[in-house]
Amino acid sequence: MVALSSAAQEKEQKIISPDVHPDNTVTFRLKAPNAKEVNLELEGSSSAAMARDDQGVWTFTTKPLSPDFYSYTFTVDGVSQVDPGNALRNPNHIWQSSMLHVPGGSSPWEEADVPHGVVHHHFYRSQVVGDQRDFFVYTPPGYEPHSHKKYPVLYLLHGFSDYADGWTAVGYANVILDNLIAAGKAKPMLVVMPLGYGAPEILQVGVGSLDHDTLRLPNYQKFTQALLSEVIPQVERAYNVDKKRDSRAIAGLSMGGTESLLTGLNHLDQFSWVGAFSSGGLPEDFDHTFPGLDSKANQRLHLLWVACGTGDSLIKINRQFRDWLKGKGITHADIETPGVHEWQVWRRNLVEFSSLLFR
Amino acid sequence: MVALSSAAQEKEQKIISPDVHPDNTVTFRLKAPNAKEVNLELEGSSSAAMARDDQGVWTFTTKPLSPDFYSYTFTVDGVSQVDPGNALRNPNHIWQSSMLHVPGGSSPWEEADVPHGVVHHHFYRSQVVGDQRDFFVYTPPGYEPHSHKKYPVLYLLHGFSDYADGWTAVGYANVILDNLIAAGKAKPMLVVMPLGYGAPEILQVGVGSLDHDTLRLPNYQKFTQALLSEVIPQVERAYNVDKKRDSRAIAGLSMGGTESLLTGLNHLDQFSWVGAFSSGGLPEDFDHTFPGLDSKANQRLHLLWVACGTGDSLIKINRQFRDWLKGKGITHADIETPGVHEWQVWRRNLVEFSSLLFR
Repeated sequence: MVALSSAAQEKEQKIISPDVHPDNTVTFRLKAPNAKEVNLELEGSSSAAMARDDQGVWTFTTKPLSPDFYSYTFTVDGVSQVDPGNALRNPNHIWQSSMLHVPGGSSPWEEADVPHGVVHHHFYRSQVVGDQRDFFVYTPPGYEPHSHKKYPVLYLLHGFSDYADGWTAVGYANVILDNLIAAGKAKPMLVVMPLGYGAPEILQVGVGSLDHDTLRLPNYQKFTQALLSEVIPQVERAYNVDKKRDSRAIAGLSMGGTESLLTGLNHLDQFSWVGAFSSGGLPEDFDHTFPGLDSKANQRLHLLWVACGTGDSLIKINRQFRDWLKGKGITHADIETPGVHEWQVWRRNLVEFSSLLFR
Repeated sequence: MVALSSAAQEKEQKIISPDVHPDNTVTFRLKAPNAKEVNLELEGSSSAAMARDDQGVWTFTTKPLSPDFYSYTFTVDGVSQVDPGNALRNPNHIWQSSMLHVPGGSSPWEEADVPHGVVHHHFYRSQVVGDQRDFFVYTPPGYEPHSHKKYPVLYLLHGFSDYADGWTAVGYANVILDNLIAAGKAKPMLVVMPLGYGAPEILQVGVGSLDHDTLRLPNYQKFTQALLSEVIPQVERAYNVDKKRDSRAIAGLSMGGTESLLTGLNHLDQFSWVGAFSSGGLPEDFDHTFPGLDSKANQRLHLLWVACGTGDSLIKINRQFRDWLKGKGITHADIETPGVHEWQVWRRNLVEFSSLLFR
């Protein structure tokens, strides 16, 4: 609670945005009296010019939208900003955006009246990376520290620019698992969401750094090392988990998709379920990136699930990688979905992938 | 990760704000080419006019600031907005603001290389309020579910407009406890941070609703009921806690300060340590609000700690309340500190109050 300018700010609150109407059209509003041009950038839609009224309030109303979560920003005279009237925002190191929720439907990412798991936030000093960092652990409904029941674990990795809370705060992974488990569509499991940067300085350099080996390779290597030597041991000490490779999965989105492939396929002694959603920054020399990987892996892999949206510019490298897998005779699921490089795709990926695990 | 406008947004990132210099002066920058007037509202400072350069970038540089966390916003032609270049923000239902971190010093809210506790995020359906809601539980370093050691518990309440994560995301309560415990200045304890709204519709009405009994009384009553009949039983089932009143404290800020007084002082069978930081929305008829409370309470209260900043407009009602306590012969700590109605005050309150507990 910040009191200093509260009266002024509370008055501003009368500008309602986003304003979801009963027919699922949505009106966005921004007061910017001296702006010359304001655009709405909404996930899944083209940039839309907003219109100014005589009070200096810019408005745009969408066509009816499917119930879902949508990221959006306003561009005011060329400068991107979040919606000042909307408390729902996507935490992100680099790209700031607001969140629109069009409620309704029975999507697995809609909070429902089902038993809920718990999300545990852990903090530790990484010897591998040399920083203070964090990870999150989802325990399913009914998880009981004092029981002897052992759970399988999905290690779930965020993308470049996300914080460690990407999969919970934006991906609603805990809500998705709650709902799938309640419906009998996913096995009760732990989901561990570690910080995905082995070389956090790539955040300063920007997303382009994932196209160059100087930073991306140390970033991937140290991530894998921190996961295997620091995060997994902490998780297995603190929680009732089945430590066998049959009960250990790894998956992630974008940078985290690449990290899942690198960590999973190069450590088949540790993981037997691997998922990659819209992998980004994947080194193109696959023979060198996955040394020795061949069809013998089929005996060890319960699932290799490689997905990408057809509207994503990364579809090309993902197709090349799947072709390489095919050439090597490595069994995998070829998944192409509608959509671009955004969370609406990854939530659906998680729903599908997690439903297949540990069966 | 949002890719659509990433190139454009990444380019904007070249505007660095906030820019903390080695001498602890801070430069704020905002690109707003067509704005006529831009002001910086910084916690602890007066509103400051920013100056425009020929690129449309508005700038202001502060005097040297003490290491601390500071909330701030920009006011652009009368409209409040967060800093688009800064990922650090304060989650809040109503007032959106960015966060400046001036690092350095050994303040207890600075993350340090000490053993860390874990923050657990719980979700449940409240029968009392009739909604899906959440609470957070901090377990201290060394907490071990399988041990028989029982911990005391501080129930710590946020203010009006905060989410349940107010005390962790903005107040750094977990960092503060980690540091105090490592220094031997606080006893290892659990800190439970529940959602503080008994009648969540007050969020729609605004902060003024805390001045009127129609909404505030049901809000307080149902909060107390949900805490006593829903949150405490869940906590005591899931964690190793000492259930005796000697090991149970309650404290909060602003609306949460009032809730701590109402819940604590009217349930001395349950709580024996009570703290109120900058209490807001406190009903003025104290005799009616605390029926039967008199000096006999001194035998049951280990601590009643009533604090307010001298620059806070709520200092008046807090002084009246302390006078009433004095008149009743109820022992309490009269705490007046510098500062207004802001988090810099409440972090310091928590440091002082938690250091006194369970001794």
